[in-house]
Amino acid sequence: MNSTWSVNPLSGAPPPGLDAGNASFDVLLGVFILFMGAKLGEEVARRLGQPAVVGELLGGFVVGPYALALVVPGETATILAEIGIVILLFTVGLEVRMDDLLAVGRPAVLTAVIAMILPVLAGVGIAVVAGEQPATAAFVGLALAATSIGITSRVLAGMGVLSLPFARVVLGAAVIDDVLALILIGLVSGTAAGDLSASTLLVAVAAIGLVAVGFAAARRARGLPREAFTWPLFADTPLVPAFIVMFALALVAAFVGLAAIIGAFVAGLIVAETEARDELEHEMRPLGSIFIPFFFAVTGAQLDLGALLDPRVALLAAVLAIVGVATKLVGGMIGSWSLGRWQSFSVGSGMVPRGEVGVVVATLGLSAGLLSATLFSAVLVAVLATTIAAPYLLAIGVPRAIAEAGGAEQRWPADTA
Amino acid sequence: MNSTWSVNPLSGAPPPGLDAGNASFDVLLGVFILFMGAKLGEEVARRLGQPAVVGELLGGFVVGPYALALVVPGETATILAEIGIVILLFTVGLEVRMDDLLAVGRPAVLTAVIAMILPVLAGVGIAVVAGEQPATAAFVGLALAATSIGITSRVLAGMGVLSLPFARVVLGAAVIDDVLALILIGLVSGTAAGDLSASTLLVAVAAIGLVAVGFAAARRARGLPREAFTWPLFADTPLVPAFIVMFALALVAAFVGLAAIIGAFVAGLIVAETEARDELEHEMRPLGSIFIPFFFAVTGAQLDLGALLDPRVALLAAVLAIVGVATKLVGGMIGSWSLGRWQSFSVGSGMVPRGEVGVVVATLGLSAGLLSATLFSAVLVAVLATTIAAPYLLAIGVPRAIAEAGGAEQRWPADTA
Repeated sequence: MNSTWSVNPLSGAPPPGLDAGNASFDVLLGVFILFMGAKLGEEVARRLGQPAVVGELLGGFVVGPYALALVVPGETATILAEIGIVILLFTVGLEVRMDDLLAVGRPAVLTAVIAMILPVLAGVGIAVVAGEQPATAAFVGLALAATSIGITSRVLAGMGVLSLPFARVVLGAAVIDDVLALILIGLVSGTAAGDLSASTLLVAVAAIGLVAVGFAAARRARGLPREAFTWPLFADTPLVPAFIVMFALALVAAFVGLAAIIGAFVAGLIVAETEARDELEHEMRPLGSIFIPFFFAVTGAQLDLGALLDPRVALLAAVLAIVGVATKLVGGMIGSWSLGRWQSFSVGSGMVPRGEVGVVVATLGLSAGLLSATLFSAVLVAVLATTIAAPYLLAIGVPRAIAEAGGAEQRWPADTA
Repeated sequence: MNSTWSVNPLSGAPPPGLDAGNASFDVLLGVFILFMGAKLGEEVARRLGQPAVVGELLGGFVVGPYALALVVPGETATILAEIGIVILLFTVGLEVRMDDLLAVGRPAVLTAVIAMILPVLAGVGIAVVAGEQPATAAFVGLALAATSIGITSRVLAGMGVLSLPFARVVLGAAVIDDVLALILIGLVSGTAAGDLSASTLLVAVAAIGLVAVGFAAARRARGLPREAFTWPLFADTPLVPAFIVMFALALVAAFVGLAAIIGAFVAGLIVAETEARDELEHEMRPLGSIFIPFFFAVTGAQLDLGALLDPRVALLAAVLAIVGVATKLVGGMIGSWSLGRWQSFSVGSGMVPRGEVGVVVATLGLSAGLLSATLFSAVLVAVLATTIAAPYLLAIGVPRAIAEAGGAEQRWPADTA
């Protein structure tokens, strides 16, 4: 293998000067292993009657650095994961109508606010009881603050219930939740750095402005003909222009400090109002099949179950996980109680998963010296535990919520196709 | 922007310990810029009546490090490009029937052999005339040896002529060409390193074996039902299993030292014999629309036109480019002369583009100290010039080849759908 192996003419068009071949090959192999991990995990999970997404997460864990160590997700896997979750939220946005979302504005706001206050207070309380200083406690609370809608989106889409009112409440609340989390993170990290400037306020205004502009754009996009997308010569179908809109809004959202997926969701809302919607739903599906598994596999690969061998970490993680699940669930139920018992249970369940924001906050706390390695591991495990708990809670709540809502009759007629 | 910007909660699920957010954002932005460069380049090219693929290449050049320097393709862009070209060759394989390929075996072999000997001899000759030592001359010749079928594939697929005999000859010759190039590179780099071992022979045997096994597998795959792909629970459609087969064969090909795209092409041949073929052609199209532009943009971003300001580089590049185009064209025409004048002209044109293999060989020569910086730049520009020349040659030859072949009547009936 040696001499010729080192000149492996992989067709990757490596940048000049890069020692070509092997680097590309290793990354490609890693990408393939992650994809296989996700799909084999899904297969095992489904054959055991478990949620597909739990299988993808655990498949990522198994091939990842904390188990078999077949692959350590690097830059490329992270970006594929990012594009995957952006595509997922775009397609979720495609299935939602603006008016339906605005119609649940009140319970969505209540859900977002209450389901953020409770876990933050609980996280702070636990950390204070554990003897941590206030700044540390603030980071622990903050790590439990923000819902990550990816897993819920996938489960609800898989169950075909995105058109039910409670699903709209979850989606609306997730958008508001992200804006609130952005503001909170700005406040806390600014305070921790002793540098709470007007920029925090500016970022908050920009974030709210982006969502507002997106909603306004969706209104104006209503009934736009397919040709609004296919006028460029490079566009045989609406796919590429829509992909560009999705990608651009995701980047704008990330630029103002929001999650990229919020921009993608808003892009989906906008495109959903146009005549290109059905065709795009169809064309995005293959892209989703390939990209989305990377998000769950990469997330699962971050799960450091080995850290639980330290009893202090295990105890803290267990407490934070249980409290993290309970507070979002209860907060979400209170906020959406007007929908009925099982629908509000489903809303609460849908708000349970934390993800990237929790990981980012914990990483920030670690690098600021405010979280110990023990606390960092415990927070990470707890964050990912909420992600794994959510599909099970939804599996309990959603069928009962459907029955409670009176089954398919309650769906919006435009969305049952 | 500052304090909160640094905690930008991009949803990319960064690996633990990575300073989250900005790194992901910059890479995502770079990916977006490359994609936009390719698509805007295509738009301009098509509005000017030029081949789309030239626009994508030049769009990549314009945003790339040698022009506006908006983006320097890194690991992620390289991998997206690699997956793009793998998808392209897989879909080309999907459109070809094994029997049609084997039916043109004789002209394909002749084309590959003659169209490799001529440019290698010419490259060596030019370098020797320029006063270079034999080892250096061998690298220059080798850099001009191997055809890269990506651009030709895209042009032929775009013209809808993949079912014509001359297109089959190009595809078959490209496979043989890659095996020959692999053997040549092993010989030359082994000799240069003074380490010409039995492994070179082993690699050659493995490469030929892989192609032979692939062809045999395609025969056995004939008429396999759709359920051969959709039996896993994760497979709602044949897409994900076929993607896995494609990716796995691309990796195996790269592992034995062939271009990954040869594995992908063989995977396409295999799948094309099954009943999942039509559905897969349909499902791969959105993936191709998103991934393939990265290949051409990344390739274009390597084009260092600034190097041409050095008159020595410019002269050498011009000579190598002209000779590189002429020798493949003439070699291909001689090899496939039995097809008729314009069809053999189209075969020769289709063999003209060099790509990744040329870049890899030049990079190897540079790092071995056998190519000077001047010679390296000249070879790179010449390699990419052949890539840009090919679509124009095909635009001349293919319409005449169609007429010569008697138009659509000569197409295989199974492929005109």
